[in-house]
Amino acid sequence: MKIIKDVKFLIVGLGLIGGSYAQALTDLGYEVGAITRSQSSIDYAKENGLISSGTTEVTREYVSRFDVIVFALYPNVLLNWLSEYQDYIKDGAVLTDVTGVKTPIVYKIQEMLRPEIEFIGAHPMAGKEVYGVQNADKTIFRNANYIVTPTDKNTPEGINCCRELGKILGFKTVCELSPEKHDEMIGFLSQLTHCIAVSLMTCKESRELVNYTGDSFRDLTRIAKINETMWTELFLLNKGELLSQMDLFIDKFKELKSAIECEDTEKMKEIMKTSTERRAYFDKK
Amino acid sequence: MKIIKDVKFLIVGLGLIGGSYAQALTDLGYEVGAITRSQSSIDYAKENGLISSGTTEVTREYVSRFDVIVFALYPNVLLNWLSEYQDYIKDGAVLTDVTGVKTPIVYKIQEMLRPEIEFIGAHPMAGKEVYGVQNADKTIFRNANYIVTPTDKNTPEGINCCRELGKILGFKTVCELSPEKHDEMIGFLSQLTHCIAVSLMTCKESRELVNYTGDSFRDLTRIAKINETMWTELFLLNKGELLSQMDLFIDKFKELKSAIECEDTEKMKEIMKTSTERRAYFDKK
Repeated sequence: MKIIKDVKFLIVGLGLIGGSYAQALTDLGYEVGAITRSQSSIDYAKENGLISSGTTEVTREYVSRFDVIVFALYPNVLLNWLSEYQDYIKDGAVLTDVTGVKTPIVYKIQEMLRPEIEFIGAHPMAGKEVYGVQNADKTIFRNANYIVTPTDKNTPEGINCCRELGKILGFKTVCELSPEKHDEMIGFLSQLTHCIAVSLMTCKESRELVNYTGDSFRDLTRIAKINETMWTELFLLNKGELLSQMDLFIDKFKELKSAIECEDTEKMKEIMKTSTERRAYFDKK
Repeated sequence: MKIIKDVKFLIVGLGLIGGSYAQALTDLGYEVGAITRSQSSIDYAKENGLISSGTTEVTREYVSRFDVIVFALYPNVLLNWLSEYQDYIKDGAVLTDVTGVKTPIVYKIQEMLRPEIEFIGAHPMAGKEVYGVQNADKTIFRNANYIVTPTDKNTPEGINCCRELGKILGFKTVCELSPEKHDEMIGFLSQLTHCIAVSLMTCKESRELVNYTGDSFRDLTRIAKINETMWTELFLLNKGELLSQMDLFIDKFKELKSAIECEDTEKMKEIMKTSTERRAYFDKK
């Protein structure tokens, strides 16, 4: 499916990310509907021009109007939703998601779906430390990456449609990874970093440290403000991968610690030089 | 000593921090001189109006002109400088520094100095990931903390002069800590965070991860670009404190890891809730 002007989008789950998708797509002139649990989210989104219609009830009549459906739900909720309502979706529709873990989601969904509809996993690597449609903000996509995770079951047209969506939403980069590669990468870049930030933040009852805190500690703990329900689910869905990334980090941390312990200044400098060199890859262009 | 308009400042060590001090003080109308190793740093600072005079040679005639001397040197260089040249300093002068570790510096200096001059340790918690006077920028002080670390040997006038300096430089907060408390705090907030960032950055040859990297990994590794000579020295000067902070962090990290391993979702959520609560203290007002 090409994303032309009369394509109709349905957002299922109107939180921060779903709301930001809705805002971006509506602002581009598309018709955007929404299904979500809370009526107040629908009301807010309508009043603020994020969607043109919305409902808390899942009906065949409503769902079948849409060509592209974006699921912005917790992983387990997403699986339940599809097993219950996939019959309502029109033939030829393209489905995608925003879930932060792909392997345990994408294959299950593709297995369960009827052949007339296509699901392509995607992960918009954007966010904020606030929740809810009230904080929807399409500008969070601007400097972010959008990762499409196709499998053998996907068609070139489906993949293209999903990539196109990433582009029109305004992401800086759109790229493709297998679900497995995605989960390995996310285990390291995102889940491990959240585990580090959370652990650092729980080291001390740190209220009295606020006056002395520079940017280093603030930067390292920004993501320690965390939605515990969502992240518990995401961590466990990617458990094996995450645990091995955590082990890798512990090894490296202990290597530095033992260099400090032995006052091995050559080793310490070597580690810091490597760190400095590698960090340079990540300087924003 | 009160910092009145005819007080003359000498900056010893014209790098990023020394240069930024010079810029701030010159812009306020004070006379600022500098001693540093490289003639090109002196030339740059003069041409760009950061200092009114400067030299690479340490002479009695030059040093004795100044009322307040700020040492922006590596810790060991600072100790050597003072043992060699303290006789050049005029009676009644106030000396301070910018070193990131205090206990092993402050007491040694106070022990070694002649009674006619007073040294008060200070730590401007500001920086950038670039070096040299060419990057001097007084605005780095604006959102930063300035910590004065007096001991029994300091006079109320000396302490006041040092606090006053922090204020006129434009720091957001000026506060006092004992050298010991300072080093404990800095071991946790700054040195541990740098160890974490460096370890994370050295986990993988990560060039291929750049395309997929969101803000989390970037934030956690910003300080992984590190001056290996300076930080090796700082880590070892605060070795005992830093090692115990590293142990504390490893304990907390393993606690989270074992909760994930056992799929103990209650424990995982509890840790993340604590983390979220504590991080809220650090939201910038």
